[in-house]
Amino acid sequence: MRVLVTGATGFIGSWVVQALAQRNHSVIATSRIEHSRDVDSEVEWRVADLLNQRDIEDLVKRERPEGLVHCAWDTAPGKYWNSSKNLNWAAASLQLLESFAANGGQRVVIAGTSAEYCWRGMEPLNETTSLLMPDSLYGVCKNSLRQIVERWASETKLSWAWGRIFCPFGPGEKPERLIPRLLAQLSTGDTIPFDSGQLIRDFLSVEDLGDALAAVLDSNVEGCVNIGSGVELSIRDMVTQLAVQSQSDRVKFGAIPDPIGQPERIVADVQRLRYEVGWVPHKPLRVRLAETAECWRSTQSNRPNNIDS
Amino acid sequence: MRVLVTGATGFIGSWVVQALAQRNHSVIATSRIEHSRDVDSEVEWRVADLLNQRDIEDLVKRERPEGLVHCAWDTAPGKYWNSSKNLNWAAASLQLLESFAANGGQRVVIAGTSAEYCWRGMEPLNETTSLLMPDSLYGVCKNSLRQIVERWASETKLSWAWGRIFCPFGPGEKPERLIPRLLAQLSTGDTIPFDSGQLIRDFLSVEDLGDALAAVLDSNVEGCVNIGSGVELSIRDMVTQLAVQSQSDRVKFGAIPDPIGQPERIVADVQRLRYEVGWVPHKPLRVRLAETAECWRSTQSNRPNNIDS
Repeated sequence: MRVLVTGATGFIGSWVVQALAQRNHSVIATSRIEHSRDVDSEVEWRVADLLNQRDIEDLVKRERPEGLVHCAWDTAPGKYWNSSKNLNWAAASLQLLESFAANGGQRVVIAGTSAEYCWRGMEPLNETTSLLMPDSLYGVCKNSLRQIVERWASETKLSWAWGRIFCPFGPGEKPERLIPRLLAQLSTGDTIPFDSGQLIRDFLSVEDLGDALAAVLDSNVEGCVNIGSGVELSIRDMVTQLAVQSQSDRVKFGAIPDPIGQPERIVADVQRLRYEVGWVPHKPLRVRLAETAECWRSTQSNRPNNIDS
Repeated sequence: MRVLVTGATGFIGSWVVQALAQRNHSVIATSRIEHSRDVDSEVEWRVADLLNQRDIEDLVKRERPEGLVHCAWDTAPGKYWNSSKNLNWAAASLQLLESFAANGGQRVVIAGTSAEYCWRGMEPLNETTSLLMPDSLYGVCKNSLRQIVERWASETKLSWAWGRIFCPFGPGEKPERLIPRLLAQLSTGDTIPFDSGQLIRDFLSVEDLGDALAAVLDSNVEGCVNIGSGVELSIRDMVTQLAVQSQSDRVKFGAIPDPIGQPERIVADVQRLRYEVGWVPHKPLRVRLAETAECWRSTQSNRPNNIDS
């Protein structure tokens, strides 16, 4: 299928591009920034700013993709939860979808978020039965967009799926986020004061995540699908695995107070992903964590200006 | 206040413009089509296509309104309920709001709809307690937009209100809609076969509606406000009032089957509008219906090409 990927140079989108190319799709990868062309010849790169209405219309009219995986959104760490840019991205997404369908688009997969759910419960979050009650502007915008797409798809016969993404990690993650920050701290000799690490999350490597979204596109599943590992991992266990990898015993759990107001447990029910899409992660979580640590170290030592190495 | 009105040549927007001018606001009225300038000098008219992102940005940056009453939307009779244009209008509304706040906007009133509610109940619909379950793409898009605005306003300190509009009628209503169609039929000598007319609706004259939206802007009410008369009127009683006005006894109720799947009763709880905004209709519904019939007749007889007159 001829598939347009948005946010194609981003943390998630770049892995979606790879996965789709491996699955023999003809990929049109789009991003605001020019991409170095040392990649698979199956991928055609296009520069476009989706926040510019004209760019969206020109791109879709020219390329007429049959498939669309829409990953682009504002994800500036610490800011994106309640930034006004969420309104611009919701608007751009609506324009893109309307234009996609009007130009012959057939099937779309959109990156949703676990933040659409109410995070106050303790049970694994289920696409059908769990309460939707987003607590951030980001979650509200994604959830509102999903409501519109769901109703609209039933009018237009557009085939659609909505991947609710949990906690992705891996190569390319922004340095301000938990795992890269921790790896940076582990690489020094310093003691690392940490909270109790009791919060439980559903981590999925971004490489697996990219393939999961591609698998959803290839499936005939309609509607919402959780994209997670389904593994309940405490932050403490995750940090410990990375520390062991780094041969470090300098993480001091309980040395600082726990953050206030953080949801105790955010875990995906992955039955739909597993049995309807027919997808499971390619490697176990502990292997992916080890790979991430290894990749982080090799990136650091290859840095031309790394005066510490 | 310097107030921007969108959809200012439209059925509702044109009355909002008048009401705001009467309330001594400095009105910037915008619409896709040029407006004849035989109006109150308090009103400045600007041509802009809100579906064009550039037009929105240029307009808001240039005018820097403090207030906004956003009425523009696609309302093509029979089509707008499930048209893809709802996506374009939701997107344009998000762009407009983001741009308005970024350029110093202080208070916004947005035209919502009773179609955001679940229409299956029998009780008057209440802003706080009634179930939101839109059954059309139009209702879903308005409701989704409202969810985003509600969350976003709490981040930005933007003052906002959302007027849920029930059944407006009056001068300027599109000829395909119930009341103008009926007035056209009543003007002939023919018998008018009608259904039982048992459905109950909340009618409000568009002249009152325009002033109600202006009153909401002038109030400090935040969030959703039903904009209706609160009067439960059956279609049969409404039609009978118009027929009596036209001295016609040719409407035959029960001559055709009732429409299938229409909600039995759509009535607004107007306590919030009455006691928090402090607004009531200027004239009783029967007077407004009589005025509408009279206005319709005078418009028809003044038509240059009206060969029937």
